[in-house]
Amino acid sequence: MAALPNASHSITLRLHLEVADLGAVGRVTTAIGEHGGAVVAVEAVETSGDRQMVDVTANGRDDEHTTRLQEAVDALEGVHLDRVSDRTFELHREGKLAVTPTVPLRTRDDLSMAYTPGVARVCRTIADHPDQARALTIKGNTVAIVSDGSAVLGLGGIGPVAALPVMEGKAALFKRFAGIDAWPVCIEATTVDDIVRVVEAIAPTYGGINLEDISAPRCFEVERRLKESLDIPVFHDDQHGTAIVVLAALLNALRLVDKPIGEVTVAMSGAGAAGVAVAQLLLHEGVHDIVVADSRGILGPGRDGLEGGKAWLAEEANPSGRDGTLKDALVGADVFIGVSAPGLLEPEDLATMAEDAVVFPLANPDPEVDPIGAGRYAAVVATGRSDYPNQINNVLAFPGVFRGALDAGARGITREMEVAAAHALAEVISPEELSPTAIIPGAFDERVAPAVAEAVRAVAAADAAR
Amino acid sequence: MAALPNASHSITLRLHLEVADLGAVGRVTTAIGEHGGAVVAVEAVETSGDRQMVDVTANGRDDEHTTRLQEAVDALEGVHLDRVSDRTFELHREGKLAVTPTVPLRTRDDLSMAYTPGVARVCRTIADHPDQARALTIKGNTVAIVSDGSAVLGLGGIGPVAALPVMEGKAALFKRFAGIDAWPVCIEATTVDDIVRVVEAIAPTYGGINLEDISAPRCFEVERRLKESLDIPVFHDDQHGTAIVVLAALLNALRLVDKPIGEVTVAMSGAGAAGVAVAQLLLHEGVHDIVVADSRGILGPGRDGLEGGKAWLAEEANPSGRDGTLKDALVGADVFIGVSAPGLLEPEDLATMAEDAVVFPLANPDPEVDPIGAGRYAAVVATGRSDYPNQINNVLAFPGVFRGALDAGARGITREMEVAAAHALAEVISPEELSPTAIIPGAFDERVAPAVAEAVRAVAAADAAR
Repeated sequence: MAALPNASHSITLRLHLEVADLGAVGRVTTAIGEHGGAVVAVEAVETSGDRQMVDVTANGRDDEHTTRLQEAVDALEGVHLDRVSDRTFELHREGKLAVTPTVPLRTRDDLSMAYTPGVARVCRTIADHPDQARALTIKGNTVAIVSDGSAVLGLGGIGPVAALPVMEGKAALFKRFAGIDAWPVCIEATTVDDIVRVVEAIAPTYGGINLEDISAPRCFEVERRLKESLDIPVFHDDQHGTAIVVLAALLNALRLVDKPIGEVTVAMSGAGAAGVAVAQLLLHEGVHDIVVADSRGILGPGRDGLEGGKAWLAEEANPSGRDGTLKDALVGADVFIGVSAPGLLEPEDLATMAEDAVVFPLANPDPEVDPIGAGRYAAVVATGRSDYPNQINNVLAFPGVFRGALDAGARGITREMEVAAAHALAEVISPEELSPTAIIPGAFDERVAPAVAEAVRAVAAADAAR
Repeated sequence: MAALPNASHSITLRLHLEVADLGAVGRVTTAIGEHGGAVVAVEAVETSGDRQMVDVTANGRDDEHTTRLQEAVDALEGVHLDRVSDRTFELHREGKLAVTPTVPLRTRDDLSMAYTPGVARVCRTIADHPDQARALTIKGNTVAIVSDGSAVLGLGGIGPVAALPVMEGKAALFKRFAGIDAWPVCIEATTVDDIVRVVEAIAPTYGGINLEDISAPRCFEVERRLKESLDIPVFHDDQHGTAIVVLAALLNALRLVDKPIGEVTVAMSGAGAAGVAVAQLLLHEGVHDIVVADSRGILGPGRDGLEGGKAWLAEEANPSGRDGTLKDALVGADVFIGVSAPGLLEPEDLATMAEDAVVFPLANPDPEVDPIGAGRYAAVVATGRSDYPNQINNVLAFPGVFRGALDAGARGITREMEVAAAHALAEVISPEELSPTAIIPGAFDERVAPAVAEAVRAVAAADAAR
């Protein structure tokens, strides 16, 4: 599957051209197109004497490809390449977040209210009534995005500093989609004990903890212990954010193929953080038969020495005790969900699935099976990519989940809240909109976060009233 | 010393009045004045039929006083008090900071550059070249304001959550005065080991660490160990911020009374974080004779069992080995600096000081000695309060110090940078401006932060070139 030129590999070429050479811009954009690049912008910057400066922005497929585009332009007659800037790097320069005061600081009176001596009265009130912190500080609207940088995107254990651009981006999404003030907490901590202790220590400032890109199996234990010790919501997005969106997409897909969720059989590839959470949520929702394979095959009675989440999947999710390979798991399955690695399957491998199969190969950026090819064997296909229909994107869940939990002052995020979030997300798609290429809303659908938030808030309120 | 009405105790009274009762507003404001309150605003909100709604805002001296003001208004004929709001609490409601994305997030292309998949390239670059983090993330302009809430203002050990309003305020000042993105890190940690471990763990996100309101003597050890283990500036503001501003004020005060700094004798009250740091910086600047008293008297040969900073002060700062009380220390002293507790001295106690005495009673909000009374015995007086001339305010130092250190990419803040900052701050006051009531710039003097930053940057650059 050849990648298409995309904005994540985009360069801006600053060119010097002769003013009289009216064909120069045409030669440049033609050369880019001939070399497989996509021209996305041309802008005349300034003219001085007989020379003009022009910025040409083009998308490529990868770093090597954008280098070739640049060389092709540089080789053109009458075109002087002054400099090349990478749009993604330009965007990230100096980071992607600002911390801004929301109070005026213009006069001495302002200072005396926002800071000393006036602030002392606010502090004393919180010391006497700690529950007032949510009303009188940032705590009520603030989420920590905690990562040790041990499992970042497809990059693995790149460490806390290198993970910072991801956590900044996530914080930006929290604000953009739910008005939440989120802050990156990239920590130098390796053991479960260390991570738990650091998160417990920094928790006072926050109304919620979003765990992010922490490797399995440590992530399970970290989350379990923090949920136990903290009185604010703790949510490992790689697990539960993914599970919520997958369940929402599955609910709508099964509506299309008219199969009740309690009767489908599911084959899964991947038993990491996302795999375990997806399986748990599906079981909770009434799916009975989920066969999960990791890189060594099906998690079943034939596998020795399984621990933690994998042992649990072998025992609880696989009721008929199946063994074998991922391909064995596919035979007769109604649903395939991949949260594992690129290119594990050929489209033809899906031919053994049940009629009207639902196929979600979610490995990103390269799915477990080519989604276009998969479409020949499946009634509905969804991926993690933004350039195909039905993108399973966590941004559909975490902003609304935390918005609802913060608004309700919830002390935790329960399985019931996750289920409610998934149903609310699925129901954003109206019966009229529902189709095989529209089982889940797009990332910018403004209906999503409020709907998810309201669902989570309602469950929290019911819990509190109980 | 009776406090004056001030903005930190300010209430807004929403009143219902008869439209025809033209004298009502006059009765209200008269009553407030008669009861010692200061009317700062009157605003007609709306009229409906024969009744009008009016907001009257008044400052009082303290909480009890504002309650009396409110009762006085409530007792007036023809005035219905609808509700009272506290301006300071209104200001703090929902906190004082927002986290805002600095990149557009409007289109799928925006997402693919700011977040996945584009962000992966930025992460990989930082993983390969960690020094690029300062350029490609928020790290280069971001400071953590770390507190365990153990010594907050005059309130003592109120804990991390109750300390949050102070740290938010401080973060707001960082942005207002130096464009720095600072973030409150209020931590649940009690031992020196715990605090050090947590700060080391969260350090990757930040370009600098501002320690705040951590009690002595733990603060000394915490700072020493963090300076050793981290490669970013660590600065305990209660110590060094105060010391910088005191030294700057002293330089200008001594200019006025024409005494060389190497020849003055200094009496100090207070041997906590600020006391130790002030004494250290003065010694470094060439003062030879500093006699420091704590609540039990002079730190000298007559005191047993002194440890840490106090032992150091008894040995290093007190060359003639004096003993006795604070009043004994004042005899013949050119300078008094108080960083201790309110009302320890009567103005007359200053009569034994040398001619042209310089007196800085900095306890806040109530100084060691009444500053008006002190003026009868001293040539120059400075306090920590904003309602007297010569306010010794840390906001004159920390924004510029961190601005300079971040801009230089400094790995630490040295004694030389502190001295340079103090001199730069003193020199903001021109010879023409210098007077006994103008030895230090006001908090809003826009010349201050750039001058301090430039001085710190220059020292850092010289260090780097060495």
